[in-house]
Amino acid sequence: MKAKSFKGMACSIAGALEAIGDRWAFLIVRDLSLGLSRYDDLQHSTQIPNTTLSQRLKHLERSGLVERRSYQDNPPRFEYALTTKGRELGVVIFALAQWGDHWNAAGTAGPPVNFVDRASGRRVKLAVVDAQSGDPVPGNRIEARPGRGADDLVRWRLDRRVAHDDERKP
Amino acid sequence: MKAKSFKGMACSIAGALEAIGDRWAFLIVRDLSLGLSRYDDLQHSTQIPNTTLSQRLKHLERSGLVERRSYQDNPPRFEYALTTKGRELGVVIFALAQWGDHWNAAGTAGPPVNFVDRASGRRVKLAVVDAQSGDPVPGNRIEARPGRGADDLVRWRLDRRVAHDDERKP
Repeated sequence: MKAKSFKGMACSIAGALEAIGDRWAFLIVRDLSLGLSRYDDLQHSTQIPNTTLSQRLKHLERSGLVERRSYQDNPPRFEYALTTKGRELGVVIFALAQWGDHWNAAGTAGPPVNFVDRASGRRVKLAVVDAQSGDPVPGNRIEARPGRGADDLVRWRLDRRVAHDDERKP
Repeated sequence: MKAKSFKGMACSIAGALEAIGDRWAFLIVRDLSLGLSRYDDLQHSTQIPNTTLSQRLKHLERSGLVERRSYQDNPPRFEYALTTKGRELGVVIFALAQWGDHWNAAGTAGPPVNFVDRASGRRVKLAVVDAQSGDPVPGNRIEARPGRGADDLVRWRLDRRVAHDDERKP
């Protein structure tokens, strides 16, 4: 996995994964989203070995997802917080949690965490909606089309299904 | 990263990441979501080295996200498709794409891929909504609360922010 970088791929998904780093980094982003900020707390919560935790935090800083702030001078201590760019990964974290809850990926008796609207106390979920109107759009109506940043490989990838469908026609 | 498994953590996010595998596996799920199905196509599209691709596909099969089907007898050839469980990861893939597009994670002139409602031709997006009514809920109103599957570590994690806020009070 380390052998090859995702850089240079015309893919926002690969780019996002490159910015985050790896699975450990997802857990760090999860905890910072929840409001944890101190190194020791992150270590206790994620159970990531020390060297790995430091490396992943540095990578997240380099990617512009996390900033390190001094909170004590003597001895010097730092805390970590998500930038706006990092905070917006909340949707990705929530999508993973929602899928994991639905398929009981944690193997627990129920969802470990409930996500609710603080104002109403009711559960919230992620939905695909029309970008302008906000009206819900059924999953089977979503279509991927080449955008302005598409290269030849993206176009090939999006054309490929149609080609296979054609091959199967009698 | 390989040294420690996410298994045993009471966390749906960690469980989802464990089921997927690693960053390469995300790209395989991306391509299967788009409708690619053949090994050679997956290889061309993801540029994953052969051994890695086989291993990741096997892991996805074991996790119940992918199924392998025979499509030719002589010589025997197989194709790959997402199960319902795998297909529902589409929300995660879309969340990564949406974030990557917004922050130009691919470094391209624009989004490589546009996601549109086939019926209207208009762009779609992910939104956080009330689980029952479908009404949009602003991000700053989402709150994480311990669920039925919470263990001591989950409770500690969710309590921790409050504790720090208290420490700071004069």
